[in-house]
Amino acid sequence: MNIGIDMMGGDFAPLEAVKGIKLFNEAHLTVDSSQLTVNGQPSTVNLALFGDKAHIETLLKEHAVDTSNIKIIGTSQVIEMDEHPTKALKEKQDSSIAVGFGYLAKGMVDAFISAGNTGAMMVGSLFSIKAIEGIHRPTIGAYMPRENGKLGWLIDAGINSDCKPENLEQFAMLGSIFAEQILNIENPRVGLINIGEEEGKGNLLAQAAYPLLKENKHIHFTGNIEGRDIFLDKADVMVCDGFTGNIILKLAESIHGLVQRRNVHDEFFDMFEFEQYGGVPVLGVNKPVIIGHGISHAKAFKNMITIAGKMVEKDVVGMIKKSVTVGS
Amino acid sequence: MNIGIDMMGGDFAPLEAVKGIKLFNEAHLTVDSSQLTVNGQPSTVNLALFGDKAHIETLLKEHAVDTSNIKIIGTSQVIEMDEHPTKALKEKQDSSIAVGFGYLAKGMVDAFISAGNTGAMMVGSLFSIKAIEGIHRPTIGAYMPRENGKLGWLIDAGINSDCKPENLEQFAMLGSIFAEQILNIENPRVGLINIGEEEGKGNLLAQAAYPLLKENKHIHFTGNIEGRDIFLDKADVMVCDGFTGNIILKLAESIHGLVQRRNVHDEFFDMFEFEQYGGVPVLGVNKPVIIGHGISHAKAFKNMITIAGKMVEKDVVGMIKKSVTVGS
Repeated sequence: MNIGIDMMGGDFAPLEAVKGIKLFNEAHLTVDSSQLTVNGQPSTVNLALFGDKAHIETLLKEHAVDTSNIKIIGTSQVIEMDEHPTKALKEKQDSSIAVGFGYLAKGMVDAFISAGNTGAMMVGSLFSIKAIEGIHRPTIGAYMPRENGKLGWLIDAGINSDCKPENLEQFAMLGSIFAEQILNIENPRVGLINIGEEEGKGNLLAQAAYPLLKENKHIHFTGNIEGRDIFLDKADVMVCDGFTGNIILKLAESIHGLVQRRNVHDEFFDMFEFEQYGGVPVLGVNKPVIIGHGISHAKAFKNMITIAGKMVEKDVVGMIKKSVTVGS
Repeated sequence: MNIGIDMMGGDFAPLEAVKGIKLFNEAHLTVDSSQLTVNGQPSTVNLALFGDKAHIETLLKEHAVDTSNIKIIGTSQVIEMDEHPTKALKEKQDSSIAVGFGYLAKGMVDAFISAGNTGAMMVGSLFSIKAIEGIHRPTIGAYMPRENGKLGWLIDAGINSDCKPENLEQFAMLGSIFAEQILNIENPRVGLINIGEEEGKGNLLAQAAYPLLKENKHIHFTGNIEGRDIFLDKADVMVCDGFTGNIILKLAESIHGLVQRRNVHDEFFDMFEFEQYGGVPVLGVNKPVIIGHGISHAKAFKNMITIAGKMVEKDVVGMIKKSVTVGS
């Protein structure tokens, strides 16, 4: 399989991307590593790197990266973190993100990764590979650390701030497929983030979403969960609108800094270092796209490549397409 | 001044209320304690206890409470924590909460405190003493611990789950008065809880609330704050709808349990023991009403009485009335 990587995205580009590729290749290219499979056949991951060719070549050499599975596609422009997504994609057609999406749309790579401008990655996804037919709102989720050491999945984590009940129902379906295939959680429990335990509680959105989730045969809905349940193992997939989700995510992300500044050393609180999880996929679009945090370091890039590989291997996009066809 | 206390509310009633009263009286009735003042004159706090008279008398004696400022009003019924508020208040007219509100409405007490059924306390407030004219939605806030040891004020913390922009504007005004008078924060900074820093970000509610807050001359609006800012000292009053606020509050409340179970000992994380703050006032109604957490222990009751006393002393309700008259 072929995975495209935006080398110019993120605060430490392209250095940390190169270091992440080195980490990935060291594990992936050794004989004893668990190879990914496609259609039951072992599949080497070939990496297509989009960015400043000379700079990337120098760094690959400096860090002694095995380049046997690497191809560099030189691009001359960079979309900065604070640029307006639509405008930047239109004006910077030779940017690493724009060219990467071109490759993805043409099938020249099977997945595309970036730790760059999230808005540009979303717009690029929606305009180049597009939303899956029947999916109203592609979405992004977020990992949530749990006291028992497991990970939960919060969805939507900030893309769709105003939602309809049907959107939340689709987030639940998308999240369930992701949790089952990528987080390896069998029959994941879906919880609706709400401000009370019983059906009928909550704001108008939550009240209307509850019966939809309850009646959906493709998910395992277990009821409402509250703010106090987020870090407990009460539901595997936690569904909410992107406004609520983004506030929860950023609040959770802030805990790691607090814990570090207070000099607290604890296995559970270490899980709040979100960087370790790598990026998250845009769910509901026609190809695997992984978006990483701007502050991504080597380990995050390695993990993003791994998640992209798993998304291709398990054909998560195909499963989502099928779930939409089957309907709720 | 006279403060009414529902002795039958909370998970440990009436024992913890009695212990809280003892703590309060030990500080308040000694000569060297800082007496509260009303109209510039020192004012002893007289306590009116509503509940099972015989039981309360026994406990007061057992705990050797100074009863020189205490009067017991015997009531024969109790509104349980899980009862339907409106129904319970209607059917249990001799409950401690119903009788307490009767005293408050008639001016026989100046403030009323309960750690009982929050819904019944809200309904009781709205039906007996009523919302201040011009206040669309009375509200409840919550203390938020900050890394620098100070406290922030989150408002609405769960009463009004669906809000209009004008509601958020009033929450900001109510919260500012509370923060200035009770938390002693001069010219408190108001932040709008949102999912981006710049004006124009957020869901439709936040987008519409921003200009109202910006143009309001009676508050010190400092812009949007994000989930990561909640535990930092970025704004003193943090405004949001009650759905968002309740999720933030319950998530924050859950941190104390996590920290305890992980055996983390830290001054900052100790601040997440919300019980220490006592109750919170219903803001926007015609008399001071304080609602405590169901699990309130002695210290919480003591603090609730203190807050009620300060609300009366500073005439917070009068200030709110004035702010509504002046308009925004």
